[in-house]
Amino acid sequence: MRPHPEHHDSRAVAALLAPDILDSLEADPGSIAADTEDMHPADLADVAEQLPTSAVPQFLAALPAARAAAILEYLDEDVRTTLLEAMSPEQAALLIEQMTPDDRADALDEIDEEHAEDIVEALPAATRRETESLLLFPSDTAGGLMTTQFVSVPDSDTVEAALAQVREMARAGRREAMNTVYAVDASGALTGVLSLRELLAAPEGARIADVAWTEVRHVHPTADREEVARVTTEYDLVAVPVVDDGNRLLGVVTVDDVIDAIQEEQTEDVQKLGGMEALDEPYMQMSIIGMLKKRAGWLSILMLSEMFTTSALQYFDGELQKLPVLTLFIPLVMSSGGNSGSQATSLITRAMALKEVQLRDWWRVALRELPTGITLGAILGVIGFIRVVVWQQLHLYDYGQNGVPYILVAVNTFFSLIGIVMFGSLAGSMLPFVLRRLGFDPASASAPFVATLVDVTGLIIYFTVALAVLGKYMG
Amino acid sequence: MRPHPEHHDSRAVAALLAPDILDSLEADPGSIAADTEDMHPADLADVAEQLPTSAVPQFLAALPAARAAAILEYLDEDVRTTLLEAMSPEQAALLIEQMTPDDRADALDEIDEEHAEDIVEALPAATRRETESLLLFPSDTAGGLMTTQFVSVPDSDTVEAALAQVREMARAGRREAMNTVYAVDASGALTGVLSLRELLAAPEGARIADVAWTEVRHVHPTADREEVARVTTEYDLVAVPVVDDGNRLLGVVTVDDVIDAIQEEQTEDVQKLGGMEALDEPYMQMSIIGMLKKRAGWLSILMLSEMFTTSALQYFDGELQKLPVLTLFIPLVMSSGGNSGSQATSLITRAMALKEVQLRDWWRVALRELPTGITLGAILGVIGFIRVVVWQQLHLYDYGQNGVPYILVAVNTFFSLIGIVMFGSLAGSMLPFVLRRLGFDPASASAPFVATLVDVTGLIIYFTVALAVLGKYMG
Repeated sequence: MRPHPEHHDSRAVAALLAPDILDSLEADPGSIAADTEDMHPADLADVAEQLPTSAVPQFLAALPAARAAAILEYLDEDVRTTLLEAMSPEQAALLIEQMTPDDRADALDEIDEEHAEDIVEALPAATRRETESLLLFPSDTAGGLMTTQFVSVPDSDTVEAALAQVREMARAGRREAMNTVYAVDASGALTGVLSLRELLAAPEGARIADVAWTEVRHVHPTADREEVARVTTEYDLVAVPVVDDGNRLLGVVTVDDVIDAIQEEQTEDVQKLGGMEALDEPYMQMSIIGMLKKRAGWLSILMLSEMFTTSALQYFDGELQKLPVLTLFIPLVMSSGGNSGSQATSLITRAMALKEVQLRDWWRVALRELPTGITLGAILGVIGFIRVVVWQQLHLYDYGQNGVPYILVAVNTFFSLIGIVMFGSLAGSMLPFVLRRLGFDPASASAPFVATLVDVTGLIIYFTVALAVLGKYMG
Repeated sequence: MRPHPEHHDSRAVAALLAPDILDSLEADPGSIAADTEDMHPADLADVAEQLPTSAVPQFLAALPAARAAAILEYLDEDVRTTLLEAMSPEQAALLIEQMTPDDRADALDEIDEEHAEDIVEALPAATRRETESLLLFPSDTAGGLMTTQFVSVPDSDTVEAALAQVREMARAGRREAMNTVYAVDASGALTGVLSLRELLAAPEGARIADVAWTEVRHVHPTADREEVARVTTEYDLVAVPVVDDGNRLLGVVTVDDVIDAIQEEQTEDVQKLGGMEALDEPYMQMSIIGMLKKRAGWLSILMLSEMFTTSALQYFDGELQKLPVLTLFIPLVMSSGGNSGSQATSLITRAMALKEVQLRDWWRVALRELPTGITLGAILGVIGFIRVVVWQQLHLYDYGQNGVPYILVAVNTFFSLIGIVMFGSLAGSMLPFVLRRLGFDPASASAPFVATLVDVTGLIIYFTVALAVLGKYMG
């Protein structure tokens, strides 16, 4: 047995190994399979990514088909797509046939449609049917995530018979969803579930129906990946069965795919929160043109909305010309509103994603954000008030222009901040509810979106407060 | 067997069941165990949360201790803490003893320290030692996440002997990490791993050392939860072994805890991106005072930084008084910079969290953001230019005051937007690198933080461009 590297950096190891593999491909391709036997397919995928594109098919051809297919599953999506598109449909079919059904469907989903159809045509009949049925479901639903390689046993079986069947299946080939055994009745309907551990622990002679759990958490194939993730997390599952309307077991979503789905969903949410469309590729792999498309749309919409600030300032330009001192605090006051809104929005969109907050809780949230916003506004208001007084007293700037007592400028800043931060917290927390109610993703309530909303309203609040506090100096 | 509810809303079911349980507690507590036998502990935890606090201990007492402990594992943290603190240490120890070791340590971590020590004292000696060793590790490290209930077999065993041992362990009681079997040598060092499925599929008569995988992905107990998540995701594991410096197997982190860790990490990241400290509790359970503490700090810091905008405006007040038209575009131009910075920051912090981008990639990112920022700025610049021209031509506003040709105001807007959006994209993308380099969490590079940074610099860019384009009208 080999020693365990203390610090295992798989990419660095891959970079070291790639030249060796290239040499072997020229000199002795037959040795590659044995040399790499002990390596994890994920690490071999890293090696493949380090090879020149033209060498990858040879490398995979030098390995047993099942092994090559496992590497394909871990390979970077773009590399895999290029690779499969470069192969003849027959070659590709030989490889793809050995992949687990869910990854096979994912791989086909990503390549050119016509080429994918040719590959599917070249698959053996049973695999073709299985693949076609998986391709029917969108990739972000339970149907798109599930594998059809699961273990089910008749619920009338004895524990021994079931165990023998499981061993036989395990020996027949690799199956993904093998940690859980599903019990089905004569009609194929799902009636129970037990872990492999529970099957091993079950008393000999018992029937599956007696030892299986009868409350089976399941999802429909149309359930979206967030729902699959919720069920998995809530019940600490390693696999979620997918059943049709007749309760027949169609497939199983395994926990590794659930984690991937959670990560992808989170990436999308963070990108939307940042005020852009979700990228569908890693940042470094996206072309600059592709990224511009995802970013320019929202930036332009936000800017068009922000133009209302110009209109508002044009509307109040008489007041501004009489009291130019008001200009000085516009960015300060507006940004505080945007920041408090950004806090509230991130809190609520995340709480919604985790189902901690439901649509019907909107008024509870509003009742929390109202006092929170007023208090935060008062804290910032005091800071703003002190700033004006200190600068005035230290003679750093004279806010008392045009006959206005400078202290009223401080008072104006104080009350504006209370109003704007309160509005920011409230608007930021309510926007995700409004979006969800209208059928949009609440995560679209980005920090920039809220900031823009608050900027425009904030200016109106600012000048309204100014008219109340300083109105008689503008007349 | 019971039918499967089509739409299972566990909380609604719990609310319906709670009154029945209350009645049974009064009339016939002995019936509760049998009545709830088929229910998942996660659902029973929901029921417990619906009961009056005083009835929860009775409810748990009516169930077998192992069952009550499983419910404790799924119970809301606050409810569990209140419950355990209300019990005598001996009562609590009886329950807590039956919990899985990692959840037991978590539960003890959350309750009052003195009370927790009393409970640990009341545990049987072996359980006490196990618990104390787990409590040594911070809860967000591999050591804090791991369970000590795993299955290991000597690597010299035959497959049959190992399988017999696994069956015996499975029958002896519930073990968490049972989907994977670890092989250890005579010194207790980890030498191999195989899944339960692989053990079942192994040829009879083979020795464990011959069939186990020898490259075992593992982590050290001090590894942080992000590292555990990365290893789990990269190799599609259902459990990650935790070993000490001597390669001895200390415990196993199971995938359900990895998912929880991923979700918590993500919640923290989103909250930090929103410009606040991470809450350690769900939004609705946090007190308003607690929330103010988490939000007011950053808001105040951001506002203090944003005060530089006031200083900048005071510095340029001569220019502003000569050309008040410049005021109109300040919010528009500044917010566009903040928005582009927010996009760049969310992209990069997320790519860093997923390890798609490393510290050393900073210049690659900069080389992408520079042309992206210039192009985005040009797009927004054109929109801004058109706005000025259209408003002027439609006689909605006269930008040509004080003898300035209005078209120069449009040109000024155009070039300012290019400069500020370019700066925003660059600053937003570089800030996470700077924070990581300085040893901070890159996720602290919040949208508001970037917006503030860009606001201050943006004003300076704005007035610099204005001096270049419109300088001669200010003289």
